[in-house]
Amino acid sequence: MKLYGAPNPAPNPRRVRIFLAEKGIDLPEIPVNMMKGEHKTPEFKAKNSLGQIPVLELDDGTVITETVSICRYLEALYPDKPLFGTSPLEAAKIDMTIRRIEFQLMTPVGMFWRHAHPYTAKLLTQFQDFGDSNRETVNRIMTWLDNELEGQDFMAGNVYSMADIAALTTIDFAAWIGLTMPGGLERLSRWHAAVSARQSALA
Amino acid sequence: MKLYGAPNPAPNPRRVRIFLAEKGIDLPEIPVNMMKGEHKTPEFKAKNSLGQIPVLELDDGTVITETVSICRYLEALYPDKPLFGTSPLEAAKIDMTIRRIEFQLMTPVGMFWRHAHPYTAKLLTQFQDFGDSNRETVNRIMTWLDNELEGQDFMAGNVYSMADIAALTTIDFAAWIGLTMPGGLERLSRWHAAVSARQSALA
Repeated sequence: MKLYGAPNPAPNPRRVRIFLAEKGIDLPEIPVNMMKGEHKTPEFKAKNSLGQIPVLELDDGTVITETVSICRYLEALYPDKPLFGTSPLEAAKIDMTIRRIEFQLMTPVGMFWRHAHPYTAKLLTQFQDFGDSNRETVNRIMTWLDNELEGQDFMAGNVYSMADIAALTTIDFAAWIGLTMPGGLERLSRWHAAVSARQSALA
Repeated sequence: MKLYGAPNPAPNPRRVRIFLAEKGIDLPEIPVNMMKGEHKTPEFKAKNSLGQIPVLELDDGTVITETVSICRYLEALYPDKPLFGTSPLEAAKIDMTIRRIEFQLMTPVGMFWRHAHPYTAKLLTQFQDFGDSNRETVNRIMTWLDNELEGQDFMAGNVYSMADIAALTTIDFAAWIGLTMPGGLERLSRWHAAVSARQSALA
C-alpha cells in the first residue's frame, strides 16, 4: 500500500498519521507538494479525480480517498486497538460523533479558511463577509462540544476513538488559522490537553 | 426503536426511509413538525442537542443521530441486502462515495438553500452573493459525478448502495430548491431515472 499525504498544518493527512500512530501501523507517507500544485496534476488526478489528499493506493492500483474511509479500511485490516468501535452501538456513536464534528465544526472552519483567510485570498475568489461569519459559528460549536463532554472523557464516550482524532486535527487547524478556542471551555480545554499529550498527537 | 423524522422535501429523513424500504424494515416514523419548530424545543433537544432530524431512539432511551450513522446501525442489526458493502474494500468505496457526495454536493446545495433561497431568507441572516455562487459549484460537481459514472451503473460501482441513496435525495432536494441538473449529463440522467424507478424512491 502507498499513502499520499502532506505535512502539517494540512489537517486531513494528519488525521491518518495520528490514526496510524495510535494503531502502531507503519505506513510511510509519500509527500504531495500542494504549494507546487502537485495534487492538481493530471497524474495525481488520475488517482483522485477531486485532486485531494490523502489518498491510499493499494498494491493492485485501487485507490481509496477520503480520510475517514481510508482509516475505516485500515481498521478492517488492522482491527487491534479499535478506533471505530466494536459493537454496533459503539460504532454508531463514534460514527455520529465524527459526522457532527465534520459537519458542525470542520465545515465552518473550512469556510473561514476558504473565504476569510489572507492566505487563500491570493488563490481564490472569496466572499469575505460570509467567511468572517464562520468565526461566530465556530465559537458556538466549540461551546456546544464543551457541553457534550459533560460526564465523558472523550468525544464519543469514555474511550479514545476516531472522533477524537477528527476533533483534535480540526481544532488545531482552526487555531493555526486564527480561530482559537474561546475562553472558559474547561471540559474542551481539559480534553484537548489530554489528547495532545498522547504520543500520536506529534504526528 | 422509535424513528423521528419529517415528510419530504426534507432530504435527510427521506434517506432513512429509502434505506428502510430497500431493506424491507418496518419502522414507522414519528413526524416532527419543523414548520412549528418542534425540532428546536427543549424536549426534542434533550434527544438531539443539535435540534436536527432524523433521530433514532432505542428502547432504553439511547439516541443515535446523523442519517448515515442511523442507517449504518440498522445495517448492523439487519445485514440482509447490504447497502454499506460487505468486504473491507467494498465498504471503503461506498463510504468514500457517500462522503464525496455529502462534502462535494450536499454542502453547496445546503449553502445555496441556507444563503440564497427565498424561503430561508425569512428565517436566517443570508450572505446571498456567497449563496448564489454555490449554483456554479453544484453544476460543476454534478458534471464531475456524471464523469465518475463512466463504466459503472451506480455511484460506488455496480451495486446499488447507500451512496445512491445519498445522491438521489440530494439531487432531488437540489431540484426542489431550483438547482436542476445541467443538460447533457447523460450518465447522471440515466442513473437518476434508474434509481428513481425503484419502489424505494417513493419514500
